[in-house]
This record gives sequence, structure tokens and C-alpha cells, in this order.
Amino acid sequence: MEFQLSCPAPLRHDTIQMAHGGGGRAMRDLLESVMLPAFSNPALEGRHDAAVVEAGGARLAFTTDTFVVQPRFFPGGDIGELAVYGTVNDLAMAGARPQWLSAGMVLEEGYPIEELRRVAASMRRAADACGVAIVTGDTKVVDRGRGDGIYINTAGLGAVPAGLDLGPASVRPGDAVLLSGDVGRHGIAVMSVRDGIAFRTPVESDCGPLHGLVAALLDGGVTPRCLRDATRGGLASVLNEIATDARVGIEAREEDIPVLPGVAGACEMLGLDPLYVACEGRMVAFVPEAEAARALDLLRSRPEGAGAVRIGTVTDAHPGAVLLRTALGTRRVLDLLSGEQLPRIC
Amino acid sequence: MEFQLSCPAPLRHDTIQMAHGGGGRAMRDLLESVMLPAFSNPALEGRHDAAVVEAGGARLAFTTDTFVVQPRFFPGGDIGELAVYGTVNDLAMAGARPQWLSAGMVLEEGYPIEELRRVAASMRRAADACGVAIVTGDTKVVDRGRGDGIYINTAGLGAVPAGLDLGPASVRPGDAVLLSGDVGRHGIAVMSVRDGIAFRTPVESDCGPLHGLVAALLDGGVTPRCLRDATRGGLASVLNEIATDARVGIEAREEDIPVLPGVAGACEMLGLDPLYVACEGRMVAFVPEAEAARALDLLRSRPEGAGAVRIGTVTDAHPGAVLLRTALGTRRVLDLLSGEQLPRIC
Repeated sequence: MEFQLSCPAPLRHDTIQMAHGGGGRAMRDLLESVMLPAFSNPALEGRHDAAVVEAGGARLAFTTDTFVVQPRFFPGGDIGELAVYGTVNDLAMAGARPQWLSAGMVLEEGYPIEELRRVAASMRRAADACGVAIVTGDTKVVDRGRGDGIYINTAGLGAVPAGLDLGPASVRPGDAVLLSGDVGRHGIAVMSVRDGIAFRTPVESDCGPLHGLVAALLDGGVTPRCLRDATRGGLASVLNEIATDARVGIEAREEDIPVLPGVAGACEMLGLDPLYVACEGRMVAFVPEAEAARALDLLRSRPEGAGAVRIGTVTDAHPGAVLLRTALGTRRVLDLLSGEQLPRIC
Repeated sequence: MEFQLSCPAPLRHDTIQMAHGGGGRAMRDLLESVMLPAFSNPALEGRHDAAVVEAGGARLAFTTDTFVVQPRFFPGGDIGELAVYGTVNDLAMAGARPQWLSAGMVLEEGYPIEELRRVAASMRRAADACGVAIVTGDTKVVDRGRGDGIYINTAGLGAVPAGLDLGPASVRPGDAVLLSGDVGRHGIAVMSVRDGIAFRTPVESDCGPLHGLVAALLDGGVTPRCLRDATRGGLASVLNEIATDARVGIEAREEDIPVLPGVAGACEMLGLDPLYVACEGRMVAFVPEAEAARALDLLRSRPEGAGAVRIGTVTDAHPGAVLLRTALGTRRVLDLLSGEQLPRIC
């Protein structure tokens, strides 16, 4: 998900800025100029949420994610659930059946053990809900003032069906762009308990697993070109990443993108664009036009995909750019944000 | 390596203490009373450095470790090398051929990007030296004062040969206990650059990979019962863990355990027991008595095993306890430390 980029750009800073973790251009630049050149290898070039590798004769998806969300408990979820669902979702986006997770914890001296129990129980519940097991782990303790309660890394492993090769490289002009539900809830839910901001309409995070939706598509005979969950940087960043990595254009219709009134209101109050606000249980599916209607039906057949909609189409015009047709009939470029809107959202 | 324990004990503290990360009894108690009950599943019961799981028809070792060593650069290594070798070694201890790594980084706002380049290059060099590739990653940024420059999680994946089942459960009374080299160097090397302590004789960390030694044993026809690398808590903790988990006694001869004079001198000055000081490139091999001589020859055939020695024997007397025969002919119990000698050593 984050080591998947190309075309090095010079960095504007000598030190790490909060923006380098925001899912936007600064993060992309850091990865392209530091991580990718250092680690370069064929698996990284897949530019997808999980690497697909071969081991012991099996085709496996392998992925990692660290969770530093602040606060650790928010409406609709907590850091433990997020740590499980986030990695389950990255595996699912590669078409894998999520099976095994690791858990690496960095605990700060003074962190309440009662909360650790709560977080661990939450991880277990989330793992059970996804049919995965946490099979290996590690615990490190850092001095007070060198952490923030708890940071959780999860890595994940799952088998990828033979012949299935999801990823930006498979996306083609003419493909339909589907979205599994309304956007922006996770970011707003976290903001609502940060800094004591209260919104008129309470918003719950969409934090949840996506592997069921992927299984519904595959079992239903739909072969998507590419799946990607919208997390840091929101829907807009996903569309931009795919447009860049697949060298295609994307056209979307703003009024087709569902945003809950509570999210829209909070975004207006905070001066945020909901299309850039993080989700944690939403995916974008690029599917062949001929399979679009069936794919939508399959997504909607499950509760977590009840709000699935088609939002646009892939085009060979304007490769690398995402154009949004507004309700007024005008078009605007949906660009990659340079920094970030909301730090430490996951 | 750390979620592998049993028999819950009541915790003595309500909050996380530095000792909970030290590799001793406090860490064991935390894992037994919080993590293991929460995550319980058959793979965790293997009580080994890596879980052995099945995915896509393959038998795989899967492991994770987070590195928070302070300082990040020390004589003989740095946090980047440690992050690669540590996980490679955990895979090797399960008998797996290390193949794929993930890298999850938590960067602190203000961390110099030039150092990040150095660390990433170091990870790449170490990965190349082990024949593994870093194929997936993640980068998070936390606010100044909520991290310590960089924390690195690596998870690892590798295929385990059919029929090979290394682990504490396989250890038998009468087995020989081999050690691949001198102990205590990593901990002392890190201490030598922490708090400006200067030792008479400079000590370099033993930080390095162990998969070559494991391959030498397996290719040479030796099937070890159990392999374990001595990291946090040192040799003494490894021997205690195996004695407890395998329900056997272990007898070792103190004068057979190699300790460099520089390490011995530094330990004396600091009031430390070198048998409890962390290594990062040493393993203990439990092998059937009949294979002990050949195993030693195979270990010594490689540079990183040149100092391999036999240090003791597994016994059915005093199950769960490690007895050390001293140079004076007396015996002392080598217990699990309650806390830790050196915080943030890896």
C-alpha cells in the first residue's frame, strides 16, 4: 500500500514531517526517493496493497501495516479492530483469503494493562469475525515519552487463487469504477473525539472487513481488475494512485459518491473535503464494463456493501488524472493532496 | 518468540513497566496473562520463535519483531541490520529458509531523512546478505515526543521443509546443548555507546544472520530437536524458556560458555552477568547426543559458527530448571530474571 510508487521526486524537507505519513504527495515522494530505491525488487513493482510472492510452492499475499491512531478508541471502533481489519483488507485487495496475522506491539512505559487487555480482546473479536488467527507476536516497551500508549503492527498472510492477478497494471480504459459505500466516516469519527470537537450528528467509523465483499465478487464469477481500500488520503487518493500507476484517466461523478449528511456537515465545519477523508471499510473496485451490473448486485447482497454504487469510468483520456464532474456540470481535477488533512488517523 | 508461554501468573503492576519488555519473568507474565489468553490458537501453542502455518498447501514459518534499540547505531551494527537479521533468525530457528520480509516503520516528526536513507540502505545490505527481499511495507509518522526517531517492525516468511518440526516439544533428556559462539556481545556493544560509558576493550555486537548455520546442519544430515537464538535476556533466558516449555532440566558447565574478555570486563564493571546479556547472532541448538559431534563440526565449518561449543546436556532431573556447574565444582540455579538488565537492546 505504501511502497508501491515510482518516479523519484526531490524531497522538500530534510526531516520527517507529519505530512510524510498522510497518504498524499509528501508520503509518495518519501517512498519514491528513499524506500523504493533502497528495497527495489520485482514484488514491490506490483504497486499494490499486498505483495504477492511464492513460498513453498504456494502463491501468497503478504502485507504489513502499523497503527498509531489517536485517540485509540473512537465511535465505531478502536486501534485493535483497526489493526486487524486494516491488514485483512490489504490481503483481500490482492484477492487473497486472509488467514494468518502477526501482532507486533510497542507499549509505552505507564500504559494501563487494563487497556491492553481491552485492545487485545478487540483484536481477537475482529480476527474471529474475519476467520483469521493471530499466530505470532512481539512486545517491546519504550520509555515514557517515547511512544503514545500503544502502537500495533500487524502483518498478514493469505493464499491467492491461481491465475488471479489483481492490481493497477490490470486496469483498462472502459472499466467501471465501483465504490462499496459512503465515504469519509472513519476520519470524521476520529476527529469527533479528538480535541473535543462535537458535531451536530454523531458519526461512527466505517471500520470493518472487506474480505466478504471480495469473496462475493469472486464466488459470483466477477473477476475485478483491481481492488483498493480507501484509507489514508481517502477516496481521492485511491483514484489518483490507480490513475498514476495504471497510466489511465478516471472520470467520476461527484453526485454519485455517497457522503452521509453528518460527514458532509462536519467536513464543512472543519473545512475538509470528504473525498480526502479516510475510510476504513470501503473499497474501490475496477471491473470490466460488462461485469459492472453483476458486480454491483453482488456487493449489495452483503450488509457491508449495501451502499455500493458506480461512481465512474476509466478512460484513455488524461492518463494519470482524475476528473470529477460536479453537480453543476463543470469538471474539476481531483488532485493528490500535497500533505495531509488529518494526522494519525490509522 | 514472545507469545509462546503458559501458566498465567497474576501481574504485579497495573501499568506497563520497562521490565515488561526485558525478556524475563515480567514479560513472560504479561504475555501469559494478557496476550496468550486473548489470542489463543493452536499455532501459538508451538511456543517457538516463529509460527508454522499452512497456506495455499505450503508449510510456512511466519514471525514478527519490532526493533526499538537505543542508540540506533552501535559498534558492529545498527537498527536496520538488526531488524533484518532478527526476523531472518526467527525464521531460521523454525527450520525455514528465510525468503520474504515486510518493513513497517514508525517515524518521529523531525527524524532526519538522511538517517532514514542510511537505515534503509543498511536493511537492504542485510537482506541481500541473507538472500531475502523486503517486498511490502508501511510508513507511519507520529508527533515529536511520541516516538524515538525510528521504530522498525519486520515480519518474515519462509518455507519449512516437509517433516521438519523444530520446537521445545521435541527436546528430550540426553540431548546435547550446543552454543554457536561467545555470548553477551550485543548488549555490551549497545551499552558502550549509551550514556557515554567507555570500556577498556571495545566490544562489537555479534549482530548477524543464523540461517547459514541452520542450513549447514540440515544439509549435513543433522536434524536438531530445537533451535533458539539468544536475544533479550541472553543465553540464560533461552535455556530457561526451553527447560520450562519442554518440561526438562538442563545442566550446563559455566567454563564451557565462551565470553570474550572485553565482555567479561564490561559486565564486571556494570555488575551484569554475561549469561543474561543479549546476543543478536548466537543460537542454542538442542541435538540428539549421537549427532552432537557432527553438528559441532558442521557449525564450526562456517565463520559465524567458528566458536561453536557444547555447553551442556538435557536431563530428566529437575524439570523446568537450569543448573550451572561452576569452575569451582559447585552448582547454581540459572534462573529467569524477574525484570531486565538492559532496556531497549533490540
